[in-house]
Amino acid sequence: MKKGGEMGMIRRSAEKQVDKREGLFGGSGGALVRSLLNGPEEMYEKGRVFAHTTLPPGSSIGFHIHENESETYYFLRGIGEFNDNGTITTIYPGDVTFTGAGEGHGLKNIGKEDLEFIALILYNKI
Amino acid sequence: MKKGGEMGMIRRSAEKQVDKREGLFGGSGGALVRSLLNGPEEMYEKGRVFAHTTLPPGSSIGFHIHENESETYYFLRGIGEFNDNGTITTIYPGDVTFTGAGEGHGLKNIGKEDLEFIALILYNKI
Repeated sequence: MKKGGEMGMIRRSAEKQVDKREGLFGGSGGALVRSLLNGPEEMYEKGRVFAHTTLPPGSSIGFHIHENESETYYFLRGIGEFNDNGTITTIYPGDVTFTGAGEGHGLKNIGKEDLEFIALILYNKI
Repeated sequence: MKKGGEMGMIRRSAEKQVDKREGLFGGSGGALVRSLLNGPEEMYEKGRVFAHTTLPPGSSIGFHIHENESETYYFLRGIGEFNDNGTITTIYPGDVTFTGAGEGHGLKNIGKEDLEFIALILYNKI
């Protein structure tokens, strides 16, 4: 992998690093998180997460509030139960959810295959 | 679709709007762009593009420079020839490319299926 910052950079699929996070925000099971950009530095301090996340069947991310930032999910695969700031709904591939600053969300894989999505967290401050 | 800004929002796959852009930056053929967030307003003015883009076989996006912003591509499907700030390489699903402020990139679908990727443009300014 070439280094970012001053030159173009390619992060190959084969070199990817996936972090396993257990019980996110009080959820069940584990979530696999592949960071596409590594934190605020690679995001010009405009946000802190741009990741491809996988929730295995039965796993969940507990409800939590985002203060001073938004989080957008873009669903690629699977079926989930999404808590949209208090409203429960079912999400499918191709759906986009937006959780604005001060709002909350939670997510559970209710299908039989992995639930995969892109997560983007952007700050709501200068 | 519920409106964003103050409440949670879900943008369903079935409601998606896809824009066809012809000859992007002097490239060949068309690109299909589905905006996941609609411009700077939905991105808290931290960037201007978060999209799922599809390049049909043979289509391309011409080489262009990003001034004062970065663009990250995350490849979901297909095979492409990527110009990484002057260096030509082949990209595959799962690869991530980062084009920093002042750098350039271009992309061509060299496979037999659609080339699909997530594009994220973040500003490099306060």
